[in-house]
Amino acid sequence: MTKLRRTPEQIRLPRGLSFSAVVAGIKASGRPDLALIESSTGASAAALFTRNLVVAAPLEVGRASLESSAGRVRAVVVNSGNANCATGRAGRVACKSVCGHAAQLLCVPADEVFPSSTGIIGVPLPAEKIIAKLPDLMTARASTTSAALAFARAIMTTDTRPKIATQRFRVGPKEVTIFGVAKGAGMIHPQLATMLVYLLTDAAATPRQLRQFLQDACDPTLNSMSVDGDTSTNDTVLLLANGQSGVRVSSGRARNKFSQALGEVCQSLAEQIVSDGEGVQHVIRLFVEQASTREEALLVAKTIAHSALVKTAWAGADPNWGRILAAVGRCGLPIDPSRVRIFIGNQMVCRDGVAHPFSERRAHQSLAQPECDIRVQLRRGKKAVRFLTTDLTAEYVHINADYST
Amino acid sequence: MTKLRRTPEQIRLPRGLSFSAVVAGIKASGRPDLALIESSTGASAAALFTRNLVVAAPLEVGRASLESSAGRVRAVVVNSGNANCATGRAGRVACKSVCGHAAQLLCVPADEVFPSSTGIIGVPLPAEKIIAKLPDLMTARASTTSAALAFARAIMTTDTRPKIATQRFRVGPKEVTIFGVAKGAGMIHPQLATMLVYLLTDAAATPRQLRQFLQDACDPTLNSMSVDGDTSTNDTVLLLANGQSGVRVSSGRARNKFSQALGEVCQSLAEQIVSDGEGVQHVIRLFVEQASTREEALLVAKTIAHSALVKTAWAGADPNWGRILAAVGRCGLPIDPSRVRIFIGNQMVCRDGVAHPFSERRAHQSLAQPECDIRVQLRRGKKAVRFLTTDLTAEYVHINADYST
Repeated sequence: MTKLRRTPEQIRLPRGLSFSAVVAGIKASGRPDLALIESSTGASAAALFTRNLVVAAPLEVGRASLESSAGRVRAVVVNSGNANCATGRAGRVACKSVCGHAAQLLCVPADEVFPSSTGIIGVPLPAEKIIAKLPDLMTARASTTSAALAFARAIMTTDTRPKIATQRFRVGPKEVTIFGVAKGAGMIHPQLATMLVYLLTDAAATPRQLRQFLQDACDPTLNSMSVDGDTSTNDTVLLLANGQSGVRVSSGRARNKFSQALGEVCQSLAEQIVSDGEGVQHVIRLFVEQASTREEALLVAKTIAHSALVKTAWAGADPNWGRILAAVGRCGLPIDPSRVRIFIGNQMVCRDGVAHPFSERRAHQSLAQPECDIRVQLRRGKKAVRFLTTDLTAEYVHINADYST
Repeated sequence: MTKLRRTPEQIRLPRGLSFSAVVAGIKASGRPDLALIESSTGASAAALFTRNLVVAAPLEVGRASLESSAGRVRAVVVNSGNANCATGRAGRVACKSVCGHAAQLLCVPADEVFPSSTGIIGVPLPAEKIIAKLPDLMTARASTTSAALAFARAIMTTDTRPKIATQRFRVGPKEVTIFGVAKGAGMIHPQLATMLVYLLTDAAATPRQLRQFLQDACDPTLNSMSVDGDTSTNDTVLLLANGQSGVRVSSGRARNKFSQALGEVCQSLAEQIVSDGEGVQHVIRLFVEQASTREEALLVAKTIAHSALVKTAWAGADPNWGRILAAVGRCGLPIDPSRVRIFIGNQMVCRDGVAHPFSERRAHQSLAQPECDIRVQLRRGKKAVRFLTTDLTAEYVHINADYST
């Protein structure tokens, strides 16, 4: 596991970034629900969005803004408590109005304000509440770790804790910092993105370079995890680079160091999102190995990770490997079950499709840990994936049985 | 809904069939776990099996027996408490041994005894326990409704009630009876079959004719339902016709009447299986309409029916239609969300992809009923499916978190 750097004293923010959060009255709880990131000099940007065909208004507006500004972003305005999704034309108008007002206060073009929303689907966005609080949001901004943590908390919905990760590296005498902040919790099965993730750095790069960095970093991390198999309508990953470190990461060692550091930040955020998934008691690191292709390994991993029967067995720390094998058998690929091997923790429990003698007590103990490795070997080839997933608990049901009413 | 005929006085058994059940000591509960159907004169047979590539031993043996006997079955021997799956060659040997001993006692060829097993995967079948009880099983058989109910109870695992359905029709002075018995409860997402279903009739037909009847009857019923999206390794539907009514159902009105009656029995059993699904509080009749093709409608129905977020909202009788729309958006088809309409009970809740004003109270009331209709209109064509599914409750998690240990 990537080392997490989460305590405030360990957080290092990239140069030139400020954060703030206020209460706009969107969340019924009265908690902060409107948050800002600002880069004093503007930044190059690249973003990944959900593959769900139901796309929330801020994603449509944000995508268009990145295009018209040629990948230039000055600020990010996020509200929680309302997804501004399935809200039609009115939703897009509301979103643009928020961006326009924020841009005026910052004296920048409207397309340099990048919007995000998260919360309930299908309820009109109360834009007037947000706009009324924008001046307070601007006044509150600060380049401090406590302001960054306030941002991380304000974008939470059913998350129980804020999710941040930082990495630094040196290029000669200069230092580059990457700071990542995310929310997750439910509707987590990203397809090219996850719920909301902001990756901020003082490295210098073009939007085109950032896009490649972002795809490379997300594929094995934020795109290889699932809490409940539901892909959100609002999934967004945004990478901003304001260049204030003075380090170009376009080639050579600087490029490699940046790529690795960004991957580590994404991996840490993915682990934080999964371990704080709704009702999650156990995180499962699922390794599907010896597949013919990476796609095949990923399909097997997802079929296992989305099986209600497998996930509920994990909730009970029950080493019921037959359910894992049955999931492999229904995944749609011509896999020969009589070659499959399954390991729970460090014990083989199924060898060539049949039971392999193992200690049930030890397997139960492995699964009872907060994190457990499960390894499925298909013996068809040499490709593998590592997929982060969770158990399915009664608590998940309780959280989701009564969300909108 | 098809009228269910479930009280013992309403059950009519086809001619020439007897049933029995005994305790063989496979279930830890000590409940009956070994059961028999016998047709005094033998019967024509057709069967559908799971599409899961992990196939239990009794399915492999049963499929081979139907082939070698040219679709002739004299008896069905079922055990519950052990699925005899992922048990390798030893599992097939154990299954054949049980069939062989039963055949000897009945003085018929071994391939006229059709085997089934249901229960935990990956544990060796205790064949000796079963074989020791076969003489008692033969002695106990009777052509009574109480014997048929004893059979229905003995094949249960996590089912809370037996599942039976009967239909009769007349052809001139002669009467044909169809009696169906099933088990379900978990791992219910049949692909060409469901857990264990036995359809017994005194109509006369060839195995080839039965196969066509069976496919036509199962497609819109037992193949259009899901509790948890997990396709079992032991799914089997067996149709036996012993001809003792003297009515050939190969053509004309007799054929149509038989086809309809068989479809009604299958529909009733599907409804019983879904409503007794593990932890189920609400049955949802999901209608996906105005699709381009039936396959498209089915894919949309399954994506909705397998969404953990949608199913948990149903558990809370929460009219959160945004989750249904989001599931449509991630189903993989190029569906335009801005044309989609969603109805809960008799109220439209989403019109052309955005909220349509509705009474939340009435929608909540509809969903709080034991059964509720939900209608999704894609406005792409004229095809439709009716799909039976359920909510996902904390009780489902409790049942499945601790099944094998």
